[in-house]
Amino acid sequence: MASVDLDAVHALALQLGKDAGKMLDDGWRLRVSGGAQAQQVEKDSAVDIVTQTDLGEQSPLNVRPDPSTQQLVTFIGEETYSKGSSKEYLVGSGPTWVVDPLDGTVNYTHIVPFFCVSIAFVLEGEPVIGVINAPLLHQTFSARKGHGAWLNDMQLPLIRNPVPPMPAAAPKGCVFSCEWGKDRRDRPDSNLHRKVESFVNMAAELGSRDGKGGMVHGVRSLGSATLDLAYCAMGSFDIWWEGGCWEWDVAAGICLLKEAGGLVTTANPPEDIEKASIEDAKLGGRLYLAIRPAGDSAHETGRQGQERTVREVWRRVRHLEYPRPGA
Amino acid sequence: MASVDLDAVHALALQLGKDAGKMLDDGWRLRVSGGAQAQQVEKDSAVDIVTQTDLGEQSPLNVRPDPSTQQLVTFIGEETYSKGSSKEYLVGSGPTWVVDPLDGTVNYTHIVPFFCVSIAFVLEGEPVIGVINAPLLHQTFSARKGHGAWLNDMQLPLIRNPVPPMPAAAPKGCVFSCEWGKDRRDRPDSNLHRKVESFVNMAAELGSRDGKGGMVHGVRSLGSATLDLAYCAMGSFDIWWEGGCWEWDVAAGICLLKEAGGLVTTANPPEDIEKASIEDAKLGGRLYLAIRPAGDSAHETGRQGQERTVREVWRRVRHLEYPRPGA
Repeated sequence: MASVDLDAVHALALQLGKDAGKMLDDGWRLRVSGGAQAQQVEKDSAVDIVTQTDLGEQSPLNVRPDPSTQQLVTFIGEETYSKGSSKEYLVGSGPTWVVDPLDGTVNYTHIVPFFCVSIAFVLEGEPVIGVINAPLLHQTFSARKGHGAWLNDMQLPLIRNPVPPMPAAAPKGCVFSCEWGKDRRDRPDSNLHRKVESFVNMAAELGSRDGKGGMVHGVRSLGSATLDLAYCAMGSFDIWWEGGCWEWDVAAGICLLKEAGGLVTTANPPEDIEKASIEDAKLGGRLYLAIRPAGDSAHETGRQGQERTVREVWRRVRHLEYPRPGA
Repeated sequence: MASVDLDAVHALALQLGKDAGKMLDDGWRLRVSGGAQAQQVEKDSAVDIVTQTDLGEQSPLNVRPDPSTQQLVTFIGEETYSKGSSKEYLVGSGPTWVVDPLDGTVNYTHIVPFFCVSIAFVLEGEPVIGVINAPLLHQTFSARKGHGAWLNDMQLPLIRNPVPPMPAAAPKGCVFSCEWGKDRRDRPDSNLHRKVESFVNMAAELGSRDGKGGMVHGVRSLGSATLDLAYCAMGSFDIWWEGGCWEWDVAAGICLLKEAGGLVTTANPPEDIEKASIEDAKLGGRLYLAIRPAGDSAHETGRQGQERTVREVWRRVRHLEYPRPGA
């Protein structure tokens, strides 16, 4: 493995997040003030800022490959795939930047505030540094493995002190975050209908729908997977359930959530919901179920409460079909 | 009608919004830092700040009734009804504050940033001043009839300059905002199922669902009617459709939206969707369909584009049943 100065990488990620966030912020203001500049301009510029980081000797990155292995730092993001390759999973064991220069593109186009830049640094397939900057929300999230997670100057999670356990009747009492996504096919068993059936199960009154009614406290949809994860890391969203994301949508958020004490596993229920072991979500798996950080109660540890909540969600949701090309 | 110094009322509303927003902000920070103080404390305090305004001679309000009519300024808000009265519509023709000291209560409880204080001043049944402060978003909205609408120091709408017309195939291309609400009954024709059927119609691919598929650009749910309206006034949300709100949820937002150039009418489709005249929503009507400000195109005025969009939404949504006690 390349030897990497993670202090320097973290500082660089923060600076890149700040610079790219500024570009996004300047971009929408430019659009509002008028003029002929297309909205594409600022997205390209933000992309440039983050992609310049992997350009080798002339790069501002200062993350150098180990001379003994000559392993290069790789850059993975939506733009990596724009050049015609199929969307195979390309993150290897070497140090890799996994970046989305603009998450929440629809929001950005409409100047809905829930857009951000998402920057992760991945070692051995695991996001170890994550930086998320949502400039119109004035929110910069940052995490580093073993060093905690932050929103601006506040350590996460940001819920009551001490951190509350998961609600005893979860998902009742939980804020449930979910997204409608881009797959809107109206076939009887399409992802759209599987999602909606799952949403309704989570929302409906307790005991309804053959016991699947979950009576969550609220249902929220922001249109940004990155911010969904960040808000789970805050503790604001108790549950986020989604399929169809790519690794650049979630890498920084996963680092943030795990450092804050949250859990992230697969969205799709296993065969034996009650007994299946709860594994960490695969970065390239496209299916995510995130649970907020949770404290211990008199009856169970925080982790037990999170796992109980995972199983209660699995009981209520359908399988989603988001295959991985090449997988 | 009482003679009212609207300059003074507007300045006071801004100050009250600032003070009450600060209370909310202090409140969640207090919860995060720990200690035994219940979350109710800060809600009560924010309520105190805004309700002190109608306490007569000792009030900081400085909105005096016309001595010739002796008509008093009335205060209407959720708390007005907490004292046991049924929720009849109480806003008369006299000058009336219509206030929600905390809109987005579920969000506030969970420290999801979409909560705010909403302050409206109503004359002859029409909101003529509106102030909305969402402290965790750093967003203060303000509007006064005839004087425009603002987000912080930026005039609304906040979309491209010039303001774009409604999309030619609306609701396609639109960001659609909707809320799941508190009525989660699982009966076949409950509001929950009427809403979900409507949401799916708006989201599904064009041409599907017997022509009702609307293929909106995105579906968003924030959990705050006030902010839904404010984001429509920005131009960020193109369409907001909802039932079940009370006047304190929407009064300030309606003032904001109309001053920004938006339209707000009833959520429930009329008998003759194509030809019905499109009336302004009634403040106490509990049913709202809001359309963002829109510019003219080569083929139609902005208002015509908004009305076309209203009819396209009406074609896709179900009637909702939120009766008004006493109505």
